[in-house]
Amino acid sequence: MAVNLPLPVAANLKPVAGIELGYAEAGVRKADRKDLLVMKLAPTASVAGVFTKNRFCAAPVQVCKAHLEGLRMAGGSIRALVVNTGNANAGTGDTGLANANATCAALADLLGCEPSQILPFSTGVILEQLPVDRIKAGLPQAIANLKTDNWYNAAQAIMTTDTQPKAASRTVTIAGKAVTLTGISKGAGMIKPNMATMLGFLAMDARVAQPVLEHMVKEVADKSFNCITIDGDTSTNDSFMLIATGAAALEVNEIGSPEYTELSAAVTSLSQELAQMIVRDGEGATKFITVTVEEGMSVEECRKIAYSIGHSPLVKTAFYASDPNLGRILAAIGYAGVDDLDVGKLDLYLDDVWVARSGGRNPDYKEEDGQRVMKQSEITVRVKLGRGTAAATIWTCDLSHEYVSINADYRS
Amino acid sequence: MAVNLPLPVAANLKPVAGIELGYAEAGVRKADRKDLLVMKLAPTASVAGVFTKNRFCAAPVQVCKAHLEGLRMAGGSIRALVVNTGNANAGTGDTGLANANATCAALADLLGCEPSQILPFSTGVILEQLPVDRIKAGLPQAIANLKTDNWYNAAQAIMTTDTQPKAASRTVTIAGKAVTLTGISKGAGMIKPNMATMLGFLAMDARVAQPVLEHMVKEVADKSFNCITIDGDTSTNDSFMLIATGAAALEVNEIGSPEYTELSAAVTSLSQELAQMIVRDGEGATKFITVTVEEGMSVEECRKIAYSIGHSPLVKTAFYASDPNLGRILAAIGYAGVDDLDVGKLDLYLDDVWVARSGGRNPDYKEEDGQRVMKQSEITVRVKLGRGTAAATIWTCDLSHEYVSINADYRS
Repeated sequence: MAVNLPLPVAANLKPVAGIELGYAEAGVRKADRKDLLVMKLAPTASVAGVFTKNRFCAAPVQVCKAHLEGLRMAGGSIRALVVNTGNANAGTGDTGLANANATCAALADLLGCEPSQILPFSTGVILEQLPVDRIKAGLPQAIANLKTDNWYNAAQAIMTTDTQPKAASRTVTIAGKAVTLTGISKGAGMIKPNMATMLGFLAMDARVAQPVLEHMVKEVADKSFNCITIDGDTSTNDSFMLIATGAAALEVNEIGSPEYTELSAAVTSLSQELAQMIVRDGEGATKFITVTVEEGMSVEECRKIAYSIGHSPLVKTAFYASDPNLGRILAAIGYAGVDDLDVGKLDLYLDDVWVARSGGRNPDYKEEDGQRVMKQSEITVRVKLGRGTAAATIWTCDLSHEYVSINADYRS
Repeated sequence: MAVNLPLPVAANLKPVAGIELGYAEAGVRKADRKDLLVMKLAPTASVAGVFTKNRFCAAPVQVCKAHLEGLRMAGGSIRALVVNTGNANAGTGDTGLANANATCAALADLLGCEPSQILPFSTGVILEQLPVDRIKAGLPQAIANLKTDNWYNAAQAIMTTDTQPKAASRTVTIAGKAVTLTGISKGAGMIKPNMATMLGFLAMDARVAQPVLEHMVKEVADKSFNCITIDGDTSTNDSFMLIATGAAALEVNEIGSPEYTELSAAVTSLSQELAQMIVRDGEGATKFITVTVEEGMSVEECRKIAYSIGHSPLVKTAFYASDPNLGRILAAIGYAGVDDLDVGKLDLYLDDVWVARSGGRNPDYKEEDGQRVMKQSEITVRVKLGRGTAAATIWTCDLSHEYVSINADYRS
């Protein structure tokens, strides 16, 4: 039921010099599916990430953070990333940590590097121990098929409840030098800002200094993966990783330089595309909804109101039904927690249709106009608060019978 | 699909001296259903309420607040409450306010009192103007059948998506004097703390001084109607009203007196019953879930975590499926926003089954034990935070296909 989600074409996913990808069918949870991915990096690569803020953050997330922190303190480089689906290795205590570390050790052994040079990622069921022996057994197979043009297979290998792989690619020229960017993402439920059962990996062949990449990944996440919500559930495992392999000519060594700004814009644009793909494939989604809140006093209050609309089950079911029951949007604005909001100044638009004006129904609003927009598969909700100049946009989807079916059946 | 919700028996709903109830079929939205209720009070009655915190609070809520504030400033008494279903008179601007005032004026005229002595309530669709002429036309019919033993009809007259009327009654003896309490409630969706498309009216024949009743209604709401959630949507119209008619011998003039404490306990108990009825009749509910969070540093953080669990669509769909996918509960605890939570000290129980211990899966936990509890229609989730002595309890329900159907079809 994905909404206008393009199926990636393998041939259009450009290899990024300096990163090879290999996959395996390790049988983590189910047989005969790609569930293990290794991404091997050139020694010149820099890597930076943002991770879930969930207090129950998964063992692999803890290990990733420790390895990146060690790299920040002592120098060195990340040589590979390893991702398994089928098991999140979350809520698994010390055994879980030991298993995440054992995965790193096994891969390091095969690649001839230190375990601290490996970043592990897991996604799947929570509260069950990782079948680490099956993962270790699958690693040689993944290493055997390492290739630079394996992005489509990589996108498949990280899928869970996703209905299709998510990947995109582009080439930009910055300061006269060509840069290739290719990314993959996964996630369809438990999607919320900061973040989702969401994995995103974006590689580019530019050379980006480590502190510069760390700055860029946060900036990009705030404009892309942190702007999507499906069901308001923030997962234990979310990670968005930015990889700069250093194989191309472009070097970016300074935050705010013209090269930085152009590269960050290109990365943001591709990341938005990858993030929106997650919403388009939202569990049971039949509509893709953009919520824009304008004229606020701060970006924070605009985001608060946008998320209140995006999370409301009543709003989401109204979209599912194509029912212009738009009072539900006003109610969600009202309980968003912006305590001094003067609703008398508020306007609401549905695409080009002016629904509410100065806090009440627009006298010129006609139900059939609202109905027309609600029937579309892509809809923009625009709220004008009339109290400032700040704005924020998020992307979300509707709530359907299918969402309930998927999540009621997920483990069976 | 209500969960263990007792159908009230009209004969068991005790009249409360000093309050008469009358209803009409005014055709506000649909024909041939009770949709208008008048509650006429003795001149000795005191009335206090708590209202939605939604910034888009409905016109009748604004009028109620103004009339109660006027009473607080200038003295006087409320003589009647009037409730319509079918239209919430919310998001209706100045016209909505004029319509709510016109309803009060019409009833005041018929009862021979001032409009400011009337409290109006509306529930139903938002963003449509109230058909005030139909309401005015229905008032004489409601007044014509005013009776003290009309509580069952009153409970029916305030229903919207409720599957059955909600009412309860009890008699207590305080300081040797008998007090009768009878209440009705409505609401099945848009249910959240502070509050729900939730109307609750509880009358008793004790005489309670106005400031004392105002204190009591807040205290009671915090332990009853503010502890329930169905879908996290706070409505524009929620109101919980406490009425003390003053017809019985018991007088309560002091907050904290023994009489106050006993009466408040009785009112709390009945209010909890009425509030839980709303959850039991939650839209599409198949399970009644009690979430208790203990050993917190503050009641606030316990409530935060309890609501995070209670609002998670993934947790709610797992309950619907009777699937002990209990990692979803840990994830919801982790993203509740208690930033310094040490999950390593956390225990999780499902009824008597110890699921997670020190933040990880309890080694003794068996899936079949979790499965057994998940199949029950009433389940208690107990979280021990291991960091203090505060506790909080909320009541909620699961998320089913039926919830989506009800809310996708609500207006059709």
